[in-house]
Amino acid sequence: MKLTIRKNELNEAVQQAAKAVSSKPAIPILSGIKFEADANGLTLTASDTEISIQTFVPANIGDEPVVRVERPGSIVLSARFMAEIVKKLPEDEIEFEQQGSFNVTIRSGATDIQMIGLDAEEFPVLPDLGSLKTVTIPGDRLKNMIRQTIFAASTNEQTPILTGVQWRLAGGELKFTATDRHRLSTCTAAVDAAEDERIDSIVIAARTLNELSRIVPDAPDPVEIAAADNQVLFRIGRVLFYSRVLDGSYPDTSRIIPQEFKTEMEIETRRLTDAIERAYLMSREEKTNIVRIVTLDGGDIEISSSSTELGRVTERMRAMRLEGDELRIAFNSKYMLDALRVIDSERIFIGFNGSMSPIVIRPTDQSDRQLHIILPYRTTG
Amino acid sequence: MKLTIRKNELNEAVQQAAKAVSSKPAIPILSGIKFEADANGLTLTASDTEISIQTFVPANIGDEPVVRVERPGSIVLSARFMAEIVKKLPEDEIEFEQQGSFNVTIRSGATDIQMIGLDAEEFPVLPDLGSLKTVTIPGDRLKNMIRQTIFAASTNEQTPILTGVQWRLAGGELKFTATDRHRLSTCTAAVDAAEDERIDSIVIAARTLNELSRIVPDAPDPVEIAAADNQVLFRIGRVLFYSRVLDGSYPDTSRIIPQEFKTEMEIETRRLTDAIERAYLMSREEKTNIVRIVTLDGGDIEISSSSTELGRVTERMRAMRLEGDELRIAFNSKYMLDALRVIDSERIFIGFNGSMSPIVIRPTDQSDRQLHIILPYRTTG
Repeated sequence: MKLTIRKNELNEAVQQAAKAVSSKPAIPILSGIKFEADANGLTLTASDTEISIQTFVPANIGDEPVVRVERPGSIVLSARFMAEIVKKLPEDEIEFEQQGSFNVTIRSGATDIQMIGLDAEEFPVLPDLGSLKTVTIPGDRLKNMIRQTIFAASTNEQTPILTGVQWRLAGGELKFTATDRHRLSTCTAAVDAAEDERIDSIVIAARTLNELSRIVPDAPDPVEIAAADNQVLFRIGRVLFYSRVLDGSYPDTSRIIPQEFKTEMEIETRRLTDAIERAYLMSREEKTNIVRIVTLDGGDIEISSSSTELGRVTERMRAMRLEGDELRIAFNSKYMLDALRVIDSERIFIGFNGSMSPIVIRPTDQSDRQLHIILPYRTTG
Repeated sequence: MKLTIRKNELNEAVQQAAKAVSSKPAIPILSGIKFEADANGLTLTASDTEISIQTFVPANIGDEPVVRVERPGSIVLSARFMAEIVKKLPEDEIEFEQQGSFNVTIRSGATDIQMIGLDAEEFPVLPDLGSLKTVTIPGDRLKNMIRQTIFAASTNEQTPILTGVQWRLAGGELKFTATDRHRLSTCTAAVDAAEDERIDSIVIAARTLNELSRIVPDAPDPVEIAAADNQVLFRIGRVLFYSRVLDGSYPDTSRIIPQEFKTEMEIETRRLTDAIERAYLMSREEKTNIVRIVTLDGGDIEISSSSTELGRVTERMRAMRLEGDELRIAFNSKYMLDALRVIDSERIFIGFNGSMSPIVIRPTDQSDRQLHIILPYRTTG
């Protein structure tokens, strides 16, 4: 391998690939990034066995030469070191020159680095998902779908399947579901896919989706998704992101979403969020985070919480619409806040079926197809 | 106690006072902030026994009424809760009304909080340092002096006195010294004090100075300092910051600062910092952080480091001045970087007395009176 590359493009590729590297690699070679140079450019690959990231620096971007490969080759170099040194090199141009099998000299200005590398042949090979059909979704929409569901996934490793988010595709619509058995969040969005293209159910670890979110741009740039039985591949510009799919079958959650309600309200999202936040601060002192909502005469509701040590917060507010049975219900305010914070619409709908049944929260804006369910607490008083 | 207060001013005072509250208070009452209202305004006090912070919200700021006290009184309220709830209250005006001995109702808009408080009589009384003479220093200069020395203090609790920074005052000059036995940093600045005003030696915990730095503004506003044998008091605007002084006698460091050098160099601060940072990244892999500087013919120096696993970084650079004996010296690059990063002048002076003697680093700008010493490593090769 012998090549010259521009610092900024190399740095960006190294930073992206390094996100797949674990701080405690399962085998030593996974502490590295594989550098592979050929006439097309430089490919970087890193993996922690759960996720793998491959980035590519092309020979030219537009008319601008970015990499000039004099001699192709490949080697694995420390991810931690490369991720920090590249951005600190003194000049805009960086030279790589392989010496013998596993040594590379990196030069930039007066800086000369003799790197000891590892054998690229030892690096795990990524699955070939190239022939699968893909669906396409704008990056910002995908990020939003992740943000609107990921918090509801379980953190309990005793039910591994619930630590992921379920993806289903049918009729050109992608649906995400996450639940930890105390709450459930779903959202649905149109994607660009053949009408008959289906994904019955794949479950992707919340941790993986967090990493994916850090790579997907906050812009409508297309993200291509190809799903196999045990792997899913995302193509984001020049970055390929591979993830394992969680084993196990996801519970059927379709029947637990109530369609009718005994009490319905519509309320300003911002005002309710602020009030629940204040009540949460008091409820937090009791660890349970219990907050109560009670309907009052004349279309008002009362939000309250208490702590035996600290006292009590009470607050009255007007609902924009309040219909149906009187209600007195207690719930985990942290769960309510998690849901309220991802709803961007000005107004929300909340539906209840008595103090023992699930609470449904969704934006009143019908174009924002998210829905959150919280199980109430059974309390006395 | 019954009063009305503006939210922003109360919030600022609560945030400042809350900085003194430990996450693990020694006694329950120290988890609270003492609120004391009288005709002059509202005084807030908090303490973790090491440091205490008192803030004051006056009845009026300029012509603007800020606090209106209808009935004086005092109570201790949870710092954690107050620090979060005050900024989240819905209206700009907040009412406090004491009910019975230890209960307060806090109202703002439709929010009603019944707080259970603690007896203000149980709160520790702050020392009276009111009659002591003070010295005055601009806030930004004080912050800078803390920044330029604090990193050299020891983190080893087995030598408690070295976990602090020594302050000495004589002839209108304040001098800070910190050392962990492997390195030493000092800086000196003029202060506004009587010519015969002296502080022989007080030692303030680095942790305390960190907290102080967060309160002192980045501006030339005056900070008044009054030092007693076991306490020191800082007045920063309407904030009083009390700190205990560390027990024990600080080592005499005056004689270890060399005045003459066998090898001297002047070098661009930025370029040297960048080169040492690159060498540090490689040296870090060996845990020892060893970096070497070697003088070359013709006024150049070579900076290098190596790791048995990863390889070697070598870099040649031109000194702006290089005089005296040839040199080959090894040192902890982390210590060198800590010193280089607090030197703002464009050029630095480094003085050596052979490979076994302390290295002296200081800005060439004579008005910036800081000096750093690093002991070299004794290595072979």
